[in-house]
Amino acid sequence: MLELRLVQGSLLKKVMESIKDLVNDANFDCSSTGFSLQAMDSSHVALVSLLLRSEGFEHYRCDRNISMGMNLGNMSKMLKCAGNDDIITIKADDGSDTVTFMFESPTQDKIADFEMKLMDIDSEHLGIPEAEYHAIVRMPSAEFARICKDLSSIGDTVVISVTKEGVKFSTRGDIGTANIVCRQNTTVDKPEEATIIEMNEPVSLTFALRYMNSFTKASPLSSTVTISLSSELPVVVEYKIAEMGYIRFYLAPKIEEDDEENKS
Amino acid sequence: MLELRLVQGSLLKKVMESIKDLVNDANFDCSSTGFSLQAMDSSHVALVSLLLRSEGFEHYRCDRNISMGMNLGNMSKMLKCAGNDDIITIKADDGSDTVTFMFESPTQDKIADFEMKLMDIDSEHLGIPEAEYHAIVRMPSAEFARICKDLSSIGDTVVISVTKEGVKFSTRGDIGTANIVCRQNTTVDKPEEATIIEMNEPVSLTFALRYMNSFTKASPLSSTVTISLSSELPVVVEYKIAEMGYIRFYLAPKIEEDDEENKS
Amino acid sequence: MLELRLVQGSLLKKVMESIKDLVNDANFDCSSTGFSLQAMDSSHVALVSLLLRSEGFEHYRCDRNISMGMNLGNMSKMLKCAGNDDIITIKADDGSDTVTFMFESPTQDKIADFEMKLMDIDSEHLGIPEAEYHAIVRMPSAEFARICKDLSSIGDTVVISVTKEGVKFSTRGDIGTANIVCRQNTTVDKPEEATIIEMNEPVSLTFALRYMNSFTKASPLSSTVTISLSSELPVVVEYKIAEMGYIRFYLAPKIEEDDEENKS
Repeated sequence: MLELRLVQGSLLKKVMESIKDLVNDANFDCSSTGFSLQAMDSSHVALVSLLLRSEGFEHYRCDRNISMGMNLGNMSKMLKCAGNDDIITIKADDGSDTVTFMFESPTQDKIADFEMKLMDIDSEHLGIPEAEYHAIVRMPSAEFARICKDLSSIGDTVVISVTKEGVKFSTRGDIGTANIVCRQNTTVDKPEEATIIEMNEPVSLTFALRYMNSFTKASPLSSTVTISLSSELPVVVEYKIAEMGYIRFYLAPKIEEDDEENKS
Repeated sequence: MLELRLVQGSLLKKVMESIKDLVNDANFDCSSTGFSLQAMDSSHVALVSLLLRSEGFEHYRCDRNISMGMNLGNMSKMLKCAGNDDIITIKADDGSDTVTFMFESPTQDKIADFEMKLMDIDSEHLGIPEAEYHAIVRMPSAEFARICKDLSSIGDTVVISVTKEGVKFSTRGDIGTANIVCRQNTTVDKPEEATIIEMNEPVSLTFALRYMNSFTKASPLSSTVTISLSSELPVVVEYKIAEMGYIRFYLAPKIEEDDEENKS
Repeated sequence: MLELRLVQGSLLKKVMESIKDLVNDANFDCSSTGFSLQAMDSSHVALVSLLLRSEGFEHYRCDRNISMGMNLGNMSKMLKCAGNDDIITIKADDGSDTVTFMFESPTQDKIADFEMKLMDIDSEHLGIPEAEYHAIVRMPSAEFARICKDLSSIGDTVVISVTKEGVKFSTRGDIGTANIVCRQNTTVDKPEEATIIEMNEPVSLTFALRYMNSFTKASPLSSTVTISLSSELPVVVEYKIAEMGYIRFYLAPKIEEDDEENKS
């Protein structure tokens, strides 16, 4: 028997909005430690990893580890029916082929039950080792989203270059070129407005903007985003989820011949 | 000669927005008691009945009963040109084949006259007898609209079931099932937030969500909606219009074989 | 060398939004007195004239007169990437075939450079003589925009008739006719809400609403619009740009046989 009661139900709504366009079907894994998901995007280029730790739930009962295959588009349709202030409970009976989402309004005057069929999905869980990164950039999530969107109007790829002074996002396209530099800046009024760069060595990597723009749909989950870069590893774009977990997107850099000339 | 001056012109704008997608052409009937309309929707399934009583107008002159056939799409285009704070006057000369809508801005600095051709429309006025209903539900109009919209993302029909405890809205579709229960609740801060159930006997009826969603376009007219249900009669979905009248939508229940199993 | 620094960068963004749908490619002319543009719309019916005087820039360096051909759609894509509070600097080296737009955030933490290829555009600069107009109407720009939009839902052309009492905008179409009268009104709380008419002789002229609606895209630049009418000249629709210049649209009246009957 599974019963997970999340008082801040809007978090789950936002999680779905941030991954439903990237991933069609996925297994949600539930264990005593938390509710998690790991899935490749439909073109097998990007990887999403979600964790909601059990401590973040008001009530968390998971008698045995289970893996529930869900169509994320359908799950999103159902979660859209929850109010932003609703408490959401995820329920499944042992051996059942359905999952139930229960939405309770804050006043308890309106109770909704949405039942969805589960699916069998083959999936392989990748171990993602902890790694050392050449550079880690933490910046306001809205600013990162704005930059990715702005650059998409000029080109298809972004070169992210980190130096001690700041992080540069560059693109080029038919109509011209664009370079946006965000300076390291830790002396801001609100800590979430800081741009903080931890750098072991300079790095400059190229990524498809289409995926970056997709990742930024998670911006409503957190006011900051952390981008971890290494020339030998996929980039990690991470959004913390309140006190209870995270959503991480992994994307391999593009190997481009004109990389060198974009670095300047 | 007809001259009806409505200070709160936005009411007429909202009335048009709530029926223009349901009804193409209709006769507006004008008599000494009020301005009214009765019309079937274009597929002859739902009936709309509108009444604006003469007392609600600042000035109401209607020398003799007349029936004015109008295309509601065109009328809506004209009324959209009125400002939300404008005073609207409906004018027609005896025997004229046009009607004039006059819009006066609150400061009287801007005066607009829109003249529209009238149409000949065959219509039959149905007498709608007062009836006893098994159950009458009054609830916030925004909540009813939200429920109909939410259920439409899952299924095509809604089963409305009333018991003493509350009203349940259910649907089922390819991706699963949904049940939303609103409890009777009269102890709210604002009377318009109450959900009040008057029940003579339990009732459970099935309706097409497409029509329900169309009716909820009248929600801006009133903060509450009244749903009157009887197993032998069409449902009535009623929105009061300020102190001066109402808009009522009538829709026959669907006779479905799986009705029984949805009742639970 | 050209370097023009505009603290209120949003003005340039608004200028682009107001002309990019009307004009595809145009030469921006830069001299010691200011930054200007004169261009016909793509169907060679309307003329746009823009002036931003050098005094309006925080820093204005233009070593020699130059004319820079730009695609306005591409320029608009780039300027959309500037924040509303950003300082915008336009830069070009002598003899370069590119122009650079630099956007600085108010805190200087984010600096963006967008470089765009220039184009060779044949253009002829028309001298527009100062002229006497029969009537000049100054009114709130939002009201003029609303009237043009409203009338477009009824007809394709607008007859603008000025008398001492006010200005009348009329149209007719398949569904009926519309007349909107704005009265001269100088006793308003805020000067920008006034409707002021200077008239030497009554005038009544017909214009294509499609162009008028296009001109009103400049409304965000100024709270008032000035419409100068003469039966022998194109109408001038002018929006002031802060203290630093203007954007003017010129459009020849339509010669219509039914002009007389619309005047009433």
